[in-house]
Amino acid sequence: MSFDDILPVPDFGLGWLDASGDHADVVLSTRVRLARNLQGHAFGPRARVNDREAVLRQVQQKIPRVPLLADAVVAEMPKLEERARRLLVERRMASRDMLGEPGRGPLRATAVLLGASAPVSVMVNEEDHLRMQTLFSGLRLRDAWSLIDRLDEELGQELPYAYHGEFGFLTSCPTNVGTGLRASVLMHLPGLVLTKEIGKVLQGLSQVGLTFRGLYGEGSEVVGNFFQVSNQTTLGKTEEDLVEHLERVVRQVIQYEMQARVVLLRDAAQVTEDKIWRAYGLLRYARSLSFEELMNLLSGVRLGVSLKLLPGLRVYTLNKLMIFSQPAHLEEAAGRSLPGTEGDAHRAAYVRRILATEGAVSPDDESSGAGPSMAG
Amino acid sequence: MSFDDILPVPDFGLGWLDASGDHADVVLSTRVRLARNLQGHAFGPRARVNDREAVLRQVQQKIPRVPLLADAVVAEMPKLEERARRLLVERRMASRDMLGEPGRGPLRATAVLLGASAPVSVMVNEEDHLRMQTLFSGLRLRDAWSLIDRLDEELGQELPYAYHGEFGFLTSCPTNVGTGLRASVLMHLPGLVLTKEIGKVLQGLSQVGLTFRGLYGEGSEVVGNFFQVSNQTTLGKTEEDLVEHLERVVRQVIQYEMQARVVLLRDAAQVTEDKIWRAYGLLRYARSLSFEELMNLLSGVRLGVSLKLLPGLRVYTLNKLMIFSQPAHLEEAAGRSLPGTEGDAHRAAYVRRILATEGAVSPDDESSGAGPSMAG
Repeated sequence: MSFDDILPVPDFGLGWLDASGDHADVVLSTRVRLARNLQGHAFGPRARVNDREAVLRQVQQKIPRVPLLADAVVAEMPKLEERARRLLVERRMASRDMLGEPGRGPLRATAVLLGASAPVSVMVNEEDHLRMQTLFSGLRLRDAWSLIDRLDEELGQELPYAYHGEFGFLTSCPTNVGTGLRASVLMHLPGLVLTKEIGKVLQGLSQVGLTFRGLYGEGSEVVGNFFQVSNQTTLGKTEEDLVEHLERVVRQVIQYEMQARVVLLRDAAQVTEDKIWRAYGLLRYARSLSFEELMNLLSGVRLGVSLKLLPGLRVYTLNKLMIFSQPAHLEEAAGRSLPGTEGDAHRAAYVRRILATEGAVSPDDESSGAGPSMAG
Repeated sequence: MSFDDILPVPDFGLGWLDASGDHADVVLSTRVRLARNLQGHAFGPRARVNDREAVLRQVQQKIPRVPLLADAVVAEMPKLEERARRLLVERRMASRDMLGEPGRGPLRATAVLLGASAPVSVMVNEEDHLRMQTLFSGLRLRDAWSLIDRLDEELGQELPYAYHGEFGFLTSCPTNVGTGLRASVLMHLPGLVLTKEIGKVLQGLSQVGLTFRGLYGEGSEVVGNFFQVSNQTTLGKTEEDLVEHLERVVRQVIQYEMQARVVLLRDAAQVTEDKIWRAYGLLRYARSLSFEELMNLLSGVRLGVSLKLLPGLRVYTLNKLMIFSQPAHLEEAAGRSLPGTEGDAHRAAYVRRILATEGAVSPDDESSGAGPSMAG
């Protein structure tokens, strides 16, 4: 089973790239996921192969009766080509854990259900029996919550969730017990990083029950000044309260970030402007780019777009570069694997091609001023 | 006295930029200078003000009778504006020493004679009473020698040179006694630097009586992989022998450099190509450039032009960028001094402007290949 087979719509799972939501230059995307388990089967590390197989069968039987998943594609991880599995991870629809041990491949009966008409997906037999999630562009926590809530209702009609009167929904890991909800917002915070205020802000998050992670979730490093901010607690509050609280704090962080950018332009205009244009120049011309360097350069350019220094460039283009320059995406485009430094060369070539067609900015664009305008 | 007054022809002293000589992509320029002193006046550190004033008067009296200097402009350093003095240094027609101590200005009776119809100039009352020099584009040692030899003949007809039957021409510093000749060739050797062969080559130079210096001569550092290779000895050989020997060795160094470039393209094509294009991208877009960084980036781009990776760009443009982005040149263009980081901003703006009009290269030029072409 190849990537083409599982993605009937070419840009499936990429709706969130369109940079349409609120504050899309600071908030890349909003994700809400719910963890659920089914009664009658062991879950978490105690689940055996026959537990997992029974769960997957049960889910597959029921999905035709779940409106939001009626036209879903069922991508069984063991049946997918290796590259297709990595593509799902890069599109943020499967977790890294679902790839399994190197050389051994994914565990039996792991799958991802991919909604074709709505931005929903469900991981089956990941850490929990079910991990349903939705992904939106920009800051759209309420929309994301209400869509996932609807999916949860629909699935709950068909499947017997493991639920405890006192604790709420039972999960494999105790940190998810209760609502099973994790709402997260992927934020770009270069202003706070460059003004060295980021430490204070991140510390503040943990004091109000929130946490942060890198681009690929738990255990991934922060690159390119991208921070995934999410709720830490799942117990003792309603889902609505959790989502509302996260939204309130995120809006505050956006304010801090905006203030930091004002400070940057006031105190270090020339340095900031130079940094932004250098990043753009390297993206336009480099012949070899690691993914990490690309992310750091995109961070500079994204700041430039947000500050209106690079008027020809759209946030959508930057989002697209981020996704399609990941290793499996580059290999998919090349139609072959790209060992050694070939991936870096293909990445640089892809970035140049996209920027030449969608992101050409004159080196001396009027609005950015030739030379010392901002530094004036 | 301003720069305009001393430079009736706008590009005076810049003929050597035209990149017309032999191997102009590796050899920027050829310079030959002769040191001479006049009988009857103390020279070197022993020369007093009245010695120097007498020498300058004597020279000024005679130059109408010297064909190569008949239309020369006499730029007396103390009468020049401070920026005009620095411009002469940046155009390589005056030495740094001629600027004098900071705050105190140049010594009395120091001057530069600037030939208007031939590329000759004469420093008066620098280390020696007379330092005549000529500067050519590319590798043109014989032409440079024969022009300076003619000037020497013409001046010697009018002025009583201090000459010793055994030692030859007497000079302030014993290392110049004899012929008083220093022939030097400004070479760009990135291949030897990148393949780490440069140490061996430089060591070899000293074994055959040659030496090397940075861009601005004695005591200046090597930047941008530019090396000034010149004769070390001045005594016991004829001028023709010295010049011929230098030429032979320089041609050998050119061969080594070319071999090193072949090795680079064979063993490190992707890294080299990437380095070149990144340098170009930064020059096209940076908002702030120190002179040293500019020289290093120009080194990369120059290599790219030489390797035919940047087909739209000419060596002439790179030579021009080098000269006109020096501090006093930028201030002259701005019509004011450029304190702090303003110079770096003006330098970057100048480079962008010139490259936009004379050096536009498509990020994906066919001949350089999109991505992994050279890396194969």
